[in-house]
Amino acid sequence: MRIAVDAMGGDHSPGVIARGAVEAAMSDPKGLEIALVGDEAGIRAELDKISAGSAKLDIVHASQTIGMSEPPAVAVRRKKDASIPVAVRLMKEGKADALVSAGNTGAVVASSLVTLGRLHGVSRPAISTYWPTSKRGAVVLDAGANYECLPKHLLHFAVMGTVFAEHQHGIENPRVGLLNIGEEPSKGNELVREAYKLLNNSDLNFIGNVEGRDVFGGAADVVVCDGFVGNVALKLSESIISFLTHMVKQEIRKRIMAKIGTMLLRGAFNSVRTKLDYAEYGGAPLLGVNGVIIISHGKSSSRAIKNAILVAKKFVDRGVNDHIEERFKGLVSDLAEIT
Amino acid sequence: MRIAVDAMGGDHSPGVIARGAVEAAMSDPKGLEIALVGDEAGIRAELDKISAGSAKLDIVHASQTIGMSEPPAVAVRRKKDASIPVAVRLMKEGKADALVSAGNTGAVVASSLVTLGRLHGVSRPAISTYWPTSKRGAVVLDAGANYECLPKHLLHFAVMGTVFAEHQHGIENPRVGLLNIGEEPSKGNELVREAYKLLNNSDLNFIGNVEGRDVFGGAADVVVCDGFVGNVALKLSESIISFLTHMVKQEIRKRIMAKIGTMLLRGAFNSVRTKLDYAEYGGAPLLGVNGVIIISHGKSSSRAIKNAILVAKKFVDRGVNDHIEERFKGLVSDLAEIT
Repeated sequence: MRIAVDAMGGDHSPGVIARGAVEAAMSDPKGLEIALVGDEAGIRAELDKISAGSAKLDIVHASQTIGMSEPPAVAVRRKKDASIPVAVRLMKEGKADALVSAGNTGAVVASSLVTLGRLHGVSRPAISTYWPTSKRGAVVLDAGANYECLPKHLLHFAVMGTVFAEHQHGIENPRVGLLNIGEEPSKGNELVREAYKLLNNSDLNFIGNVEGRDVFGGAADVVVCDGFVGNVALKLSESIISFLTHMVKQEIRKRIMAKIGTMLLRGAFNSVRTKLDYAEYGGAPLLGVNGVIIISHGKSSSRAIKNAILVAKKFVDRGVNDHIEERFKGLVSDLAEIT
Repeated sequence: MRIAVDAMGGDHSPGVIARGAVEAAMSDPKGLEIALVGDEAGIRAELDKISAGSAKLDIVHASQTIGMSEPPAVAVRRKKDASIPVAVRLMKEGKADALVSAGNTGAVVASSLVTLGRLHGVSRPAISTYWPTSKRGAVVLDAGANYECLPKHLLHFAVMGTVFAEHQHGIENPRVGLLNIGEEPSKGNELVREAYKLLNNSDLNFIGNVEGRDVFGGAADVVVCDGFVGNVALKLSESIISFLTHMVKQEIRKRIMAKIGTMLLRGAFNSVRTKLDYAEYGGAPLLGVNGVIIISHGKSSSRAIKNAILVAKKFVDRGVNDHIEERFKGLVSDLAEIT
């Protein structure tokens, strides 16, 4: 299996990306080949600093780079030789089985939609994030690919999320919840009220509306929302953890006994931090495109990149996209009505 | 000053409500009168258990109660003698200066809109919550009064939030941020892109878009969003704190040294918990109605009810509603264009 990695994406490229790619390749020197896509000289210089053993790595040169805050549509149209479109073309040409990028998310979404298209039946792709919960974790989507949604898009997110939870995370018959502001079907705005009806009439294991307070409690295995709400919720959740750490540290600084207490608690804190660290999960797949695309956080560490590559490998191994298309065949008749 | 308190609202009524009302009245026996609205016999039985000293309290009987999950519009129309509409009418008749309710939020919003109307110039009222941040705290609105918004509604929320932050919280020239999924003005859905333009052309201290991750960092003093997004964000934030506590406790249980550490840290933890406890802030005003309405959490403790009553008193003392109407006068010319 050959995985393309956008070496120019993220806040610490190409060094951290190259390091993560080497770590992933070394963890599976027989099964995994990595193509680092980007500025050849820059990547080469980074690789020279790292001992790569028998890992299979090569560089695919791309002369341009799309910046993290460039307007995606324009950037993808103008910079044909940037690392993101070059890496996506590798997939189109059958030279890569998956792509991992910590670069401009909008550019990754736009480029893969234009070049690879959508899986049969899918109306909109969705970024699917995995959240830790008090129970077994939850798939939350869309986390930011679509800022204006129709009810049927939410239905499609639910179908893709269900298949992903089943096949990537091994959750049997995942419980699907619709993120809303109350439990009753009549609650919320028009989008979610209509989506409720579609979900309720589907063959999914739909458990109804879930509220913001239910997500971390593990009320649902798949939580469906539009990409605006999902993105706000995701970033808010990430920030709360560092906010709480900041608050606790401030209080500890005032108390000598607390300082000793902190030392004794270090193991427990580190364990919690690991469970909450997005780097553990590595990346979020863009479900619904005709290809395996894993989007990583711009702030990704080498460990996050390594884990994202392993997420990509598992996604390919398990044939998640085939399962999604299979599941959508059953939806085709409904689709005609809804569209 | 006389404050009406909905004695039948919340998960622990009327006992907890009566207790909170007595605590508030006793804290200011000269300045504060409380009217407990609801089932007279039930309230009387609770008051008999509490020593109320010289506190000024009376009961206004209401023969009906609106349940926490009843559809608000129907309930308000049918149950004219429920505690919420009876309490709202006390305000209309000049027999109360403010209302505190931990009951059905939708019913409080509907009843006060119908009976009291809106402040001059305001298109939609908004529930305004106060969030702790790394800096001085932020006013976040709308937290759930409106699930479908137009751009001008967000502008009005920003104006009301600014006045509230200034006059209730003493924040000078509050920085207003629009909750969005990216910093650039072009980001987000149509609602926020259009609202951005209105805010940018207003005389508010608008600092642009803020992301989910910026809220707890204190990037803005007033964070504006539609009530769907705000409600999801609020409930999510509340739940993360209990989720983290749960995770940390689980890890501590596995480690003997950590148990000792926890004891030493108790003071620091309790201090953080107090800062994050909604009971400290007591209640969220429904800004924009022609009256002072404070909405409390359904799970309110007696301390939360006491604090909500003190929030109401401060709101009346500071004449926040007069300041809101004053500020809207300057907006009237813009309004004509926008509407």
